[in-house]
Amino acid sequence: MNMMRDINNINNFHEQVLRDPVHTYIHIKNPIIFNLVNTPEFQRLRRIKQLGPTSFVFFGATHTRFEHNLGVYELTRRICNIFTQKYATQQSDDGLWDPSNNLLVECAALLHDLGHGPYSHTFEHLFNTNHELMGQKIILDENTQINKILKQVSPDFPQKVASVIAKTYPNPQVVKLISSQADADRMDYLLRDAYFTGVSYGAFDLTRILDVIRPYKNGICFLDKGIHAVEDYIISRYQMYQQVYFHRIGRSMEVILHHLLQRAQEIYQRNDIKDFTVTPQLEAFLANKWSLEDYLALDDGVMETNFMLWTKSGDKILADLAGSYLYRHPLESVKVNNQTKYLIPKLNELIKNAGFDPQYYTATNSAFDEPYDAYKPTGKNAHSPIEIMENDGTLVELSELSPLVKALNGTVQGDERFFFPKTMIKSLGDVQLFQPLYSEFQSYINNNSLQDPQKIKGTDF
Amino acid sequence: MNMMRDINNINNFHEQVLRDPVHTYIHIKNPIIFNLVNTPEFQRLRRIKQLGPTSFVFFGATHTRFEHNLGVYELTRRICNIFTQKYATQQSDDGLWDPSNNLLVECAALLHDLGHGPYSHTFEHLFNTNHELMGQKIILDENTQINKILKQVSPDFPQKVASVIAKTYPNPQVVKLISSQADADRMDYLLRDAYFTGVSYGAFDLTRILDVIRPYKNGICFLDKGIHAVEDYIISRYQMYQQVYFHRIGRSMEVILHHLLQRAQEIYQRNDIKDFTVTPQLEAFLANKWSLEDYLALDDGVMETNFMLWTKSGDKILADLAGSYLYRHPLESVKVNNQTKYLIPKLNELIKNAGFDPQYYTATNSAFDEPYDAYKPTGKNAHSPIEIMENDGTLVELSELSPLVKALNGTVQGDERFFFPKTMIKSLGDVQLFQPLYSEFQSYINNNSLQDPQKIKGTDF
Amino acid sequence: MNMMRDINNINNFHEQVLRDPVHTYIHIKNPIIFNLVNTPEFQRLRRIKQLGPTSFVFFGATHTRFEHNLGVYELTRRICNIFTQKYATQQSDDGLWDPSNNLLVECAALLHDLGHGPYSHTFEHLFNTNHELMGQKIILDENTQINKILKQVSPDFPQKVASVIAKTYPNPQVVKLISSQADADRMDYLLRDAYFTGVSYGAFDLTRILDVIRPYKNGICFLDKGIHAVEDYIISRYQMYQQVYFHRIGRSMEVILHHLLQRAQEIYQRNDIKDFTVTPQLEAFLANKWSLEDYLALDDGVMETNFMLWTKSGDKILADLAGSYLYRHPLESVKVNNQTKYLIPKLNELIKNAGFDPQYYTATNSAFDEPYDAYKPTGKNAHSPIEIMENDGTLVELSELSPLVKALNGTVQGDERFFFPKTMIKSLGDVQLFQPLYSEFQSYINNNSLQDPQKIKGTDF
Amino acid sequence: MNMMRDINNINNFHEQVLRDPVHTYIHIKNPIIFNLVNTPEFQRLRRIKQLGPTSFVFFGATHTRFEHNLGVYELTRRICNIFTQKYATQQSDDGLWDPSNNLLVECAALLHDLGHGPYSHTFEHLFNTNHELMGQKIILDENTQINKILKQVSPDFPQKVASVIAKTYPNPQVVKLISSQADADRMDYLLRDAYFTGVSYGAFDLTRILDVIRPYKNGICFLDKGIHAVEDYIISRYQMYQQVYFHRIGRSMEVILHHLLQRAQEIYQRNDIKDFTVTPQLEAFLANKWSLEDYLALDDGVMETNFMLWTKSGDKILADLAGSYLYRHPLESVKVNNQTKYLIPKLNELIKNAGFDPQYYTATNSAFDEPYDAYKPTGKNAHSPIEIMENDGTLVELSELSPLVKALNGTVQGDERFFFPKTMIKSLGDVQLFQPLYSEFQSYINNNSLQDPQKIKGTDF
Repeated sequence: MNMMRDINNINNFHEQVLRDPVHTYIHIKNPIIFNLVNTPEFQRLRRIKQLGPTSFVFFGATHTRFEHNLGVYELTRRICNIFTQKYATQQSDDGLWDPSNNLLVECAALLHDLGHGPYSHTFEHLFNTNHELMGQKIILDENTQINKILKQVSPDFPQKVASVIAKTYPNPQVVKLISSQADADRMDYLLRDAYFTGVSYGAFDLTRILDVIRPYKNGICFLDKGIHAVEDYIISRYQMYQQVYFHRIGRSMEVILHHLLQRAQEIYQRNDIKDFTVTPQLEAFLANKWSLEDYLALDDGVMETNFMLWTKSGDKILADLAGSYLYRHPLESVKVNNQTKYLIPKLNELIKNAGFDPQYYTATNSAFDEPYDAYKPTGKNAHSPIEIMENDGTLVELSELSPLVKALNGTVQGDERFFFPKTMIKSLGDVQLFQPLYSEFQSYINNNSLQDPQKIKGTDF
Repeated sequence: MNMMRDINNINNFHEQVLRDPVHTYIHIKNPIIFNLVNTPEFQRLRRIKQLGPTSFVFFGATHTRFEHNLGVYELTRRICNIFTQKYATQQSDDGLWDPSNNLLVECAALLHDLGHGPYSHTFEHLFNTNHELMGQKIILDENTQINKILKQVSPDFPQKVASVIAKTYPNPQVVKLISSQADADRMDYLLRDAYFTGVSYGAFDLTRILDVIRPYKNGICFLDKGIHAVEDYIISRYQMYQQVYFHRIGRSMEVILHHLLQRAQEIYQRNDIKDFTVTPQLEAFLANKWSLEDYLALDDGVMETNFMLWTKSGDKILADLAGSYLYRHPLESVKVNNQTKYLIPKLNELIKNAGFDPQYYTATNSAFDEPYDAYKPTGKNAHSPIEIMENDGTLVELSELSPLVKALNGTVQGDERFFFPKTMIKSLGDVQLFQPLYSEFQSYINNNSLQDPQKIKGTDF
Repeated sequence: MNMMRDINNINNFHEQVLRDPVHTYIHIKNPIIFNLVNTPEFQRLRRIKQLGPTSFVFFGATHTRFEHNLGVYELTRRICNIFTQKYATQQSDDGLWDPSNNLLVECAALLHDLGHGPYSHTFEHLFNTNHELMGQKIILDENTQINKILKQVSPDFPQKVASVIAKTYPNPQVVKLISSQADADRMDYLLRDAYFTGVSYGAFDLTRILDVIRPYKNGICFLDKGIHAVEDYIISRYQMYQQVYFHRIGRSMEVILHHLLQRAQEIYQRNDIKDFTVTPQLEAFLANKWSLEDYLALDDGVMETNFMLWTKSGDKILADLAGSYLYRHPLESVKVNNQTKYLIPKLNELIKNAGFDPQYYTATNSAFDEPYDAYKPTGKNAHSPIEIMENDGTLVELSELSPLVKALNGTVQGDERFFFPKTMIKSLGDVQLFQPLYSEFQSYINNNSLQDPQKIKGTDF
Repeated sequence: MNMMRDINNINNFHEQVLRDPVHTYIHIKNPIIFNLVNTPEFQRLRRIKQLGPTSFVFFGATHTRFEHNLGVYELTRRICNIFTQKYATQQSDDGLWDPSNNLLVECAALLHDLGHGPYSHTFEHLFNTNHELMGQKIILDENTQINKILKQVSPDFPQKVASVIAKTYPNPQVVKLISSQADADRMDYLLRDAYFTGVSYGAFDLTRILDVIRPYKNGICFLDKGIHAVEDYIISRYQMYQQVYFHRIGRSMEVILHHLLQRAQEIYQRNDIKDFTVTPQLEAFLANKWSLEDYLALDDGVMETNFMLWTKSGDKILADLAGSYLYRHPLESVKVNNQTKYLIPKLNELIKNAGFDPQYYTATNSAFDEPYDAYKPTGKNAHSPIEIMENDGTLVELSELSPLVKALNGTVQGDERFFFPKTMIKSLGDVQLFQPLYSEFQSYINNNSLQDPQKIKGTDF
């Protein structure tokens, strides 16, 4: 675990072994990787949780983007090892693996999520940042230590690494190792998130997958004798989405986070509240004047430090939302769909009458995912199908061989929910005043879904 | 996972089940427990890592005091259940368990570490805080939500809970359930720290221990048929100390943290640096004028937010130490003992000549632990031995039955280390100037220990 | 682990705790259960492997019916505990659990597979035995120790236990606990077979399932908050069938076993081979004159002892098949379907020309399973759907709530295979004579499936 | 899992992957290994349980010598791989690993326990067999398939393999890989026995051990950074002996087995009982005229088939002991020591008076083990100490670095027990006649140990 060896001498470099609860050990055999890990830009990922507000639901999920990036690196390193030993190219165009790509793809794996900031999804939406662009910038900007270390390999190495992450690097094997429907990125996050949330369903047989993964001309595929392990990986992904990533409480906390930051932004830009405090790290973003350096100074702790300050704010809504987030008071929610959405304005009216500004105390939020898609050749989320190689070298798309995957292929799983203050359905007993209003509100809800009260009555329960 | 049920109505209360990677599920069956968890004072523990800087060594160890407290509660709840079912008292003085203690001891378990702040050990030393006293205060102060909820049970309930944690409650069974050499606290942290660090040695057979734990007149003991599980628990404890809690890099990061905060304190109190910035949450402590409210506003993120600000400080030492901590640049170290300590002033001189202020760049740090002690009846760290009940009811002290525990009994394990800048032994190649000085320094080190260079030469290696 | 306590005194009975790698511990709290386990009829199950020839494929699968029965008992005991604590009936017809059924259903669970003999499926087919009938007989026959112990509860207790196993007992909750699509039997065998084969896919979240299982008027259901665990259980079942129970090599060994026993039966009944030896335990069955006592004397070891003797037989086919089984020389196989079956006679002709009697060296074998069926109300394999209870008490059939289960609902998974001597496709190089014949045979096989060579050619490969 | 590939063509050989619950997968990459596994002599190990009667205590322990041998092979293969990649010799006498030994040591690992028969310890004692000699014979005898396959490597290869197993092969690295205090044999059986018994204490961190194992001139050692893993391995060994291998019930069943076989031997040799039946496989041994072929025909099932026949014997003692073994009726036991042994004749007299022949119903049995011994350079059980390599290449003996191992070093753990019929202390209530006799017997027992009743009284309880 000693990370203090000589940094500049490859020959002198002692392999570093880091203990990882998910992959047991992470082996760093190249000083370039070691030095990348030791940069401020990479160490900063220790302070950004991998799953953000999900740790409010699964309290074990305090793991960070630091260890996920290391995990993706480690899986990639193992795959490169396997490819180099079993499938090293002999002649150009034989569709095998060129081991001279190893360091490139290992660096790309390590840095693939380098651009993430705190609560990426919410933050990016409000402050016009973009973790993919920021990742490219950190790699390519000459002032970062990451860039300096990558350039030790060759002057164009930063650009190469960036292009692998951007999926524009010409060799599809290299790109797909970290960006496809069965890549090192997904494999690591499913296993890691399963481990730290404690949701055992997310585990799958990585050992077997590594046994049967292989390169072919246009990318990566799996030998047919390991099809059960690949099938199980798809199922694990489905289950993690259903149970963890789409959990209604996690989404509720994200809604609060969004409204809280939005409120802060508005207050700052109106510049009308005297007792609004903000630390320098966040102020640049509220002011909409931020640099790469500002971006690198952000982390979860900075955000929460500001939220803590805001609980004392004279702005009631800001203070309330800050407390709701820090002390975990989620909004309640019900399912909605296209048939019931028309009822939301009516509900918002009731919520307003009960004293809540719907802009800050309600939201409609969708969470949908395609567990697997064999047929999405183009577009922003384009991804190639998972291919299985039969004994004779023929490639067959996964869902043709697995009835379970066929069933999931192309489907969309998830739901849309309407979020609102808990008090609308769980009044604390002491407020007689709003009781009729609450009752009316509750008449719109049946079995966790929004419904027209007229129709509910009509069913003669 | 829905934590939004009616808070005030016991009869209406739906059991809450939280997923925990360590104990699988945590069951909250009493609304008092539920409400305690939902206070700001308790939720704050989500933002304080259980092992502090150890996560710089074992990167999975990002788990917090929040989940440890819940874990101790859950183990205590299970034990209370077992005692109530199998060992409920029938008549006074039969040495069995009085189930009317269940809620009391469950609350005490949940709140036993409530007073912890960020980096407790280091922080307390410098700022004169004390997590035990703070825990008592949070429970007893009428302004905290914790206190208000506990008083719903009875007016003297907060005092009772506080006395269990302070070990002054008269019933020794209740006290020893959470404070003894084999209590719910240790059982949870060993298992939890093992899980999150990935150090498998720390695991032991909790199921079996819960099978054989039982109350007796003066406390808690274990049936002899489960002695192997108890023995294994002691071994696990020994191994976690050797491998995790005493890891030299973790201690090194703690040294840096100490020097960093000490430097900040001095700067603040001298009031002589213009560009020293601090957030309000920490300022109260630097000014040595803090209240309970200030204490409750502290967390790991606040500390790191300040460290980030300090990396820009005009004070070189402060800035350097802040960066060393945030970006993980540990000091190097060697073992010292009473025979070699006299060499330290000479080394400090060399270090000073190399340009480092020894006050901020060196330290001597001891880490020692007694894996088990059968014979420490009094004093600050007094603890009763672990007792094994034989078939006929006789109690025998553990080390009399286990040769392994006997071997460890009363021994002290650990080491003392001298910490210094890495460059003294791993110069980065570009500094010719100090090379002779470095060489002299290195002549004092042999096999990771401090040694007199005269004596080393004398051994004719 | 001491099983030697006083047998007849309930009050004196000390709980017995057996270590089980699958459920950690099995708790025997009632001396009736303890005494049933200690009968010769039950101990005999130690000598009958749970998965028969599957251990030739997954060599860890040497576990026996003894531990499976204990495991089903343990799960049932835990469920009874949960039902008694959480869902004990208050008044007749409230649809809750009557704890007076506990011992009954625990006994039925323990004894549900008592009638199994060695290699049940194959053996029953040839010797006209039936493990269900034999189980009933062992319970009801006055000469068995099982019967004597059950009668200690009440004179009609053996009959009651037998009727629960036969699914004729009037209380559907009691019956479905051990016979339904989500019963203690399946839960144990999936977990146990997964553990011993090492096929991790078979594991599911038993803890969660036990958290959400509950009785209702017509049987057993699961609370909707645990639907993911139930869904995962169905997936596990699907995966175990695909990977373990239907493995082609396991089926191949079963084909050999069938042919071997069939050959022995014919030889014995023709009475024409002088050097045919058989131990007394098996002879009764070859003679078709066997008693319950004979049945109870059979086990895997008896069978293999005879196979070993038969390797020396003067009957070449018998000797060869016995060796093939004992030393694991499986037949090779290809998939067939209704479109290709007409080719089998042609292949049999080639096999015959190569010197193998098709009756003993080929077979067509189907392995199909319905992973889940919501709509099979009657018939031999009738089973009720899995029902999920929503918050308001409504019951919903599982596949309506789970897209994954919906995809599997009512489908049939598996394949039909044609088995033949390996030498037909893997000639050992030294036999030139048959080479043309082998080549012709191989022309019928494409990608592990039977195909008309004319059509294969037609595809212009 | 398909084991049916071409046997004779190395180039054509497809790697075979067997699923193993302990090591996840076993990889067979050389056709020699594959062919050895497929011999009748090796397949026979499937029918011999690894732990014999221990499965009567830990019912999961039905695993066989087949999988243990495969496991030792797999560990050896992995170590050879590591040595070849990291420590391949460059010049003679550099103390590194010569990869030309790989196949040799892998074969020796696979075949190291080939000579075991059923219940080795007991059987050898009575029938003058010896599993080590038999193993050598199977390897060297020209009529075995094992020998024929080994000779395909070279004419002297069988002899070389045999000499590695016999520890006479000149290269100490090769020998110690499978015979030392930390060899592949022990590592596999500790992990495997722990897995199948369910005794979690037996597990240790194999991954780490494989990370730090390395060759040196005189054998195998471990890098000091992995010392905790080695220490943990020694503790695991200690715990498995205490809890599994020395379990009093397992030893009791072994006593019964011994007496049963001894009785059968006497009956057979006296030739005086008409209704004594024995299968041909065992008869050769009772007649004391057995060949290698006879030895290879033995297995657990043959033994139990005979025991089953003997339950019907006219010899009461034989029939009773056979039933006691098959149906698991262990003898009871108490601890004895040199101070209390003199009481045994008195107890035997009481037992005789109660109707039991002490020769067949009592025994004194010792089970002692040295968990670790740094100083046993010669003699039958000679073994070299475990050596740790420090940074500078110095070797240090393990117990010098580990306080825990130091505590165990050279100690002897275990006990001596006197076994007798259960009825002497647990009379079944219906036999008034012997009650005074039983009471007298019980007066000699205190706290599970033998004691002089005069002295017990003297303690004034």
